[in-house]
Amino acid sequence: MSSPSDLIVQSAARSAAVHRKIAPAIFRTPVIASRLPMQSGTQLIYKTENFQHTGSFKLRGACAKLTTVPLDRPVITASSGNHGIACSLAAQTTGHTLIVVLPETVVAKKRKTIEGFGTRVVIAGADASLAELHAQEMAEAEGYTYISPYNDAQIIAGQGTAALELLDQADQIDNVFISMGGGGLISGMGSVFKEFSPQTRVVGVSASHSAALAASIKAGRIVETDHLDTLADGVAGGVDVDSLTLPMASEVIDEIVHCSEAQIEDALKILAWSENMLVEGAAALALAAFLADTEKYVGQTSAVLLCGGNYDIERIRSII
Amino acid sequence: MSSPSDLIVQSAARSAAVHRKIAPAIFRTPVIASRLPMQSGTQLIYKTENFQHTGSFKLRGACAKLTTVPLDRPVITASSGNHGIACSLAAQTTGHTLIVVLPETVVAKKRKTIEGFGTRVVIAGADASLAELHAQEMAEAEGYTYISPYNDAQIIAGQGTAALELLDQADQIDNVFISMGGGGLISGMGSVFKEFSPQTRVVGVSASHSAALAASIKAGRIVETDHLDTLADGVAGGVDVDSLTLPMASEVIDEIVHCSEAQIEDALKILAWSENMLVEGAAALALAAFLADTEKYVGQTSAVLLCGGNYDIERIRSII
Repeated sequence: MSSPSDLIVQSAARSAAVHRKIAPAIFRTPVIASRLPMQSGTQLIYKTENFQHTGSFKLRGACAKLTTVPLDRPVITASSGNHGIACSLAAQTTGHTLIVVLPETVVAKKRKTIEGFGTRVVIAGADASLAELHAQEMAEAEGYTYISPYNDAQIIAGQGTAALELLDQADQIDNVFISMGGGGLISGMGSVFKEFSPQTRVVGVSASHSAALAASIKAGRIVETDHLDTLADGVAGGVDVDSLTLPMASEVIDEIVHCSEAQIEDALKILAWSENMLVEGAAALALAAFLADTEKYVGQTSAVLLCGGNYDIERIRSII
Repeated sequence: MSSPSDLIVQSAARSAAVHRKIAPAIFRTPVIASRLPMQSGTQLIYKTENFQHTGSFKLRGACAKLTTVPLDRPVITASSGNHGIACSLAAQTTGHTLIVVLPETVVAKKRKTIEGFGTRVVIAGADASLAELHAQEMAEAEGYTYISPYNDAQIIAGQGTAALELLDQADQIDNVFISMGGGGLISGMGSVFKEFSPQTRVVGVSASHSAALAASIKAGRIVETDHLDTLADGVAGGVDVDSLTLPMASEVIDEIVHCSEAQIEDALKILAWSENMLVEGAAALALAAFLADTEKYVGQTSAVLLCGGNYDIERIRSII
């Protein structure tokens, strides 16, 4: 294996530095051993960001970002999902003024959740990408700091702190399975692994129904793909054209595995009924890749990153 | 508050001593903060024995007991449930020969699980209590050591190790909610609290449908009660006439709360859909007592012991 590039080394160092700062605000999520039957010597463990405050790893990046923003500078983002909720709790903790731009189509319940943290909500744009554009324009016009969900070195370093903890919590990790959306999580965690545990194979897991980052890595440039409805909606969507995550993910990922909706559903059921955890589809996605080829991991220790536990109850109920 | 009796002090000391011995064999189960909306200053945390190896706290007692039995002396018990599985893994770990007596009515799947650990299974008796009698007779005749699921000072001390960990993992605990079956768990954990954290209120939680220990504590002697079917089947059943747990539980419990089947079901649903954990009914029972009177615990830190995660999938699916 070759030495990691400066980009990766710097991200790992940034993760280590920021971890000390954000530790009081985040939950050092447990590592839980699988109870699935395994051959002797084969281990499967879960890093359970599904139990993170706000129910998602996104809190790590949000807290990490806010450590770099002066308290009197308002911050702005555009997400009604895990990133928006994470920024809301992070800003409530630090005291930053946070504005979240939500599209006109936002569900009332999600808006209420965000507002419940004291976050200022601005409604603008017919859909999520237009709301995002509006947030970026507002940031420019008003001098606010825009918080990207993944295209930001500090956000990426924050997500990487999950890997630092995992390396402390487990003796040795041969393979780590990480779901890929915009790529913030896998870029941050992957950098930490490449720098501090280079023998660990980093497996990026992509939902076949929304695989923009995987396709971009293959193409060597950001490409657009179709986005079909996926149970792993937390990782759905395209990737910014200038995204930092493309070069980082391209370097840190040893293998990409694509999983179908049926595989994600199966993994979700196994997590529910054998591991006793209800998770969101994007979390089940990471396990699906391990299950797709268990023979390959015999005699090794594999870690699956469960990225979150926020889901639509009706949808999960109908599956399990 | 008065000083604990010698019985309690000794049990707490035994827990501390045995914890060092069994630590390598058990999982230091995580403490996870509730995500339910709470008033400011109010905290609810879970000690998650549902993630213990074998899916139940019973492994602690089983391991603790085996530390006192010479390796060349066979051990025997009679349980196809959490206790039998826990003894099986414990004996597999230590190398003890274990015999488990199962009744003629035992389900094939449970028998297979027990045998999967290398445990010797003997089929005898028309029901669980006759199988237990057979095990005790065999122990006497053959010089085996009988392992009671709760009526044993060493088993009780082993269960108490969950409280030692909990006290390490949380800053301060005002109330702890523990489900009551035979009383081994609450006697062991309660002793540790009385000795090392006397300000913690120990709440014993009883399923109204099977409340033998609660009725016995009230009567000051072992009494028989009706046992109706309960979702909390892990705590169902009577209590031995000579049980150590009666004086211990009577001393350490500050309050007993009775919960109905509807309350247990509600707690189970909340654990599933708000806390993202699927647990057995006996675990949900402990949360039900907290939920029954949340006003009382405002401004305090309450800990709920989730005792296990072994359940009949069909039954849980129909509830959630």
